[in-house]
Amino acid sequence: MQALDYIQSNKDRFLEELIDLLKIPSVSADSKFKGDVRKAAEFIQKKLMDAGADSADIVETAGHPIVYGEKMLDEKLPTVLVYGHYDVQPADPYELWDSPPFEPVIKNERIYARGACDDKGQMYMHIKSFEALMSNNELPCNVKFMIEGEEEVGSDNLEAFVRENKEKLAADVILISDTGIIDNDNPSITVGLRGLSYVEVEVTGPNRDLHSGMYGGAVGNPINILCDMIAKLQNEKGEITIPGFYKDVEVLSDEQRAQMAKAPFNLDHYKKELDIDDVKGEEGYSTLERTGIRPTLDVNGIWGGYTGEGAKTVLPSKAYAKISMRLVPNQSSEEITKLFTDHFMSLAPASVKVKVTPHHGGEAAVVSTGSVGYKAAEQAMTDTWGKQPIPMREGGSIPIVALFQDVLKLDSILLGFGLDEDAIHSPNESYGLFNYYKGIETITMFYKHFAEMSR
Amino acid sequence: MQALDYIQSNKDRFLEELIDLLKIPSVSADSKFKGDVRKAAEFIQKKLMDAGADSADIVETAGHPIVYGEKMLDEKLPTVLVYGHYDVQPADPYELWDSPPFEPVIKNERIYARGACDDKGQMYMHIKSFEALMSNNELPCNVKFMIEGEEEVGSDNLEAFVRENKEKLAADVILISDTGIIDNDNPSITVGLRGLSYVEVEVTGPNRDLHSGMYGGAVGNPINILCDMIAKLQNEKGEITIPGFYKDVEVLSDEQRAQMAKAPFNLDHYKKELDIDDVKGEEGYSTLERTGIRPTLDVNGIWGGYTGEGAKTVLPSKAYAKISMRLVPNQSSEEITKLFTDHFMSLAPASVKVKVTPHHGGEAAVVSTGSVGYKAAEQAMTDTWGKQPIPMREGGSIPIVALFQDVLKLDSILLGFGLDEDAIHSPNESYGLFNYYKGIETITMFYKHFAEMSR
Repeated sequence: MQALDYIQSNKDRFLEELIDLLKIPSVSADSKFKGDVRKAAEFIQKKLMDAGADSADIVETAGHPIVYGEKMLDEKLPTVLVYGHYDVQPADPYELWDSPPFEPVIKNERIYARGACDDKGQMYMHIKSFEALMSNNELPCNVKFMIEGEEEVGSDNLEAFVRENKEKLAADVILISDTGIIDNDNPSITVGLRGLSYVEVEVTGPNRDLHSGMYGGAVGNPINILCDMIAKLQNEKGEITIPGFYKDVEVLSDEQRAQMAKAPFNLDHYKKELDIDDVKGEEGYSTLERTGIRPTLDVNGIWGGYTGEGAKTVLPSKAYAKISMRLVPNQSSEEITKLFTDHFMSLAPASVKVKVTPHHGGEAAVVSTGSVGYKAAEQAMTDTWGKQPIPMREGGSIPIVALFQDVLKLDSILLGFGLDEDAIHSPNESYGLFNYYKGIETITMFYKHFAEMSR
Repeated sequence: MQALDYIQSNKDRFLEELIDLLKIPSVSADSKFKGDVRKAAEFIQKKLMDAGADSADIVETAGHPIVYGEKMLDEKLPTVLVYGHYDVQPADPYELWDSPPFEPVIKNERIYARGACDDKGQMYMHIKSFEALMSNNELPCNVKFMIEGEEEVGSDNLEAFVRENKEKLAADVILISDTGIIDNDNPSITVGLRGLSYVEVEVTGPNRDLHSGMYGGAVGNPINILCDMIAKLQNEKGEITIPGFYKDVEVLSDEQRAQMAKAPFNLDHYKKELDIDDVKGEEGYSTLERTGIRPTLDVNGIWGGYTGEGAKTVLPSKAYAKISMRLVPNQSSEEITKLFTDHFMSLAPASVKVKVTPHHGGEAAVVSTGSVGYKAAEQAMTDTWGKQPIPMREGGSIPIVALFQDVLKLDSILLGFGLDEDAIHSPNESYGLFNYYKGIETITMFYKHFAEMSR
């Protein structure tokens, strides 16, 4: 394809344009950036038109605008609806950034800036792929772009837009790049998003830090008590003890489980790669089942008392933990958060006070690996990597995927190129140049295969 | 007493002298300060002579020297042996100090410097009290000073000195100011030092932080496992489950316990003051027994995973805790550390590796409240505070107290004036000017009462 050569010879400009976009501090959560959010929308609108869209509009909403553009070649051709977002997470704390978040720098073959990966970098790959295809008369499908400015604040106004524009948004598949791959040697495609319930718990004992020599043994120690409460959340079989936790969990048939068991998986290699002597999880399930079809509970962070060098004999006033539960289809994030909260509070002895604060949640979603969209994405990655991608269920939730399934009756193909080290939502967010260019190429190949396979 | 007026009119000079002493970085742990450690010893020697000692010698040891001085008035008078130390903890990390650790500053009626409280400030009170009594011909006892330079590194050479100089050190009581009071409104005297076994534990799961969405439920989470292991260290009755833990614990008679129960204690006030709805501890024991005669186990610090703002779904590679056990007389710190280590390791599932690092320990010691020394100290504090001091068992261990009981057969009176907020061993160590002057006065009154009560 000439489009691939075109990408090759326009690399530098593609990067410069992304840098220009990253310089716009389009933080949707903070009203003082309202003007910048609009500037980013206008930037996208212009680039869509420059690339050859029939139209590209800034659609007003009750909040930040949605950019909607399209290129309709022929009604008979399949249509791809691209979803992405041009807003970014707040960049605080600024002092933890090695370079200012809205002054992109290239270092170690990575571009550092807020939004470099999430989602400006990943979203902009789609516009550049579109440009490459258009410039070489190689676009084989109709394309619709729906790029919103409120993903980082809950996509509240997108839902209304989608519900009101079902016909306009009619398509054969939704393509989204807002997820990741295993690593640059192991391409993967996200096929399932487990739901999530994420809470922060605070256990308060005495009203101030005490000397453990004076009070230890007589005053409930919030760390010991927190550990005890956490330990009680799971039983010896690795089952979660929250009453009602499993009631909506889909029970797979033996046949379905046998099918899953055929997936290539080498436990010895898995253990060796993680340097562990044994895996650990719910009794009666394999490792792939434990991460794929069963809900789980993990403490993601814990802290309390003295954590510096050496020894201090404090009996602290407070102890904290961040606890998340991965949910499977049919489990409601909101309900699980409530069940957790009630149960956790009931585990507290009278000597402490407990506060549970829900962080955020999301419902589970599953993408079929049998769809044309999936097959096309798989083939595109195989082309560009020389290696078949691994279908992966991922933990991160993208709530709009459930919305698209519900309202538009469309599968989303989660063709993302991020890495864990991109540190999205964190200081020093970055995106690999390798991933940016590989993404543009892979998306380009996706259109080709999707058109061919749809015939 | 004229000595009290003398203290009052020499306050400024007493403080200036302490500042001079604090400027000497006598860090015993770091050989690059060897010369400074000696300078501090020479400073003490000179001040003892200036104050009126018969002699003050720098006694060489295999490590840093001991300053030994004395004033013998009359063999028939009682003799007080003062112990203290002129060496200090290392001051690192320097960057956490608001002002340089060896450039003392006065702020908010406190003197900030490494060693301000521990133990230069507290030790120097004795020399100034001695000066005040000598200058006014009011010293009513013989006094011996044994001021060492290796307390912060284990007092290794002091033990040899004590064993070799039993006769020279003969006295009626040992007086030490290296402990604290409850607060400036509530004077207290330390009458028991529980022993201590303090360990740091490290639980390692996978060799790197993982995404909990991808691995959660299948790979042992070191935080969950650490919580579980900590929870198992105590049973539902609040008893410590380490095999052999209680075997050397002294069992008090019903009579002894009845005696203890007579101590003034108001549980409602205790709970209200700490803002807790209930106390928590070993079944079958009262709050005073739990802190006084029973060994205990507390987690003093715990950390692992993501502890910043918001939500991150990490399954961390490691989790850590600092755990200490308070020991009662007859329990061996070293043996308990070993029992803990063996038991803790046995609690670990195969999915993690566990490391236990002993921090430091100390044996328990008890001071009788019926001795003349205690009564004199009690009366001295009552004089200067207008309030009777509370006898307290404290957690911090001073290993040499057990040594003095063993070799010299002498009780130590722990007449300390520090506060928790002094932050000894930490950056920004400080000592209240109130405590410094009150200490000098109280020590002065101690001599008077000790001489009178010894008649």
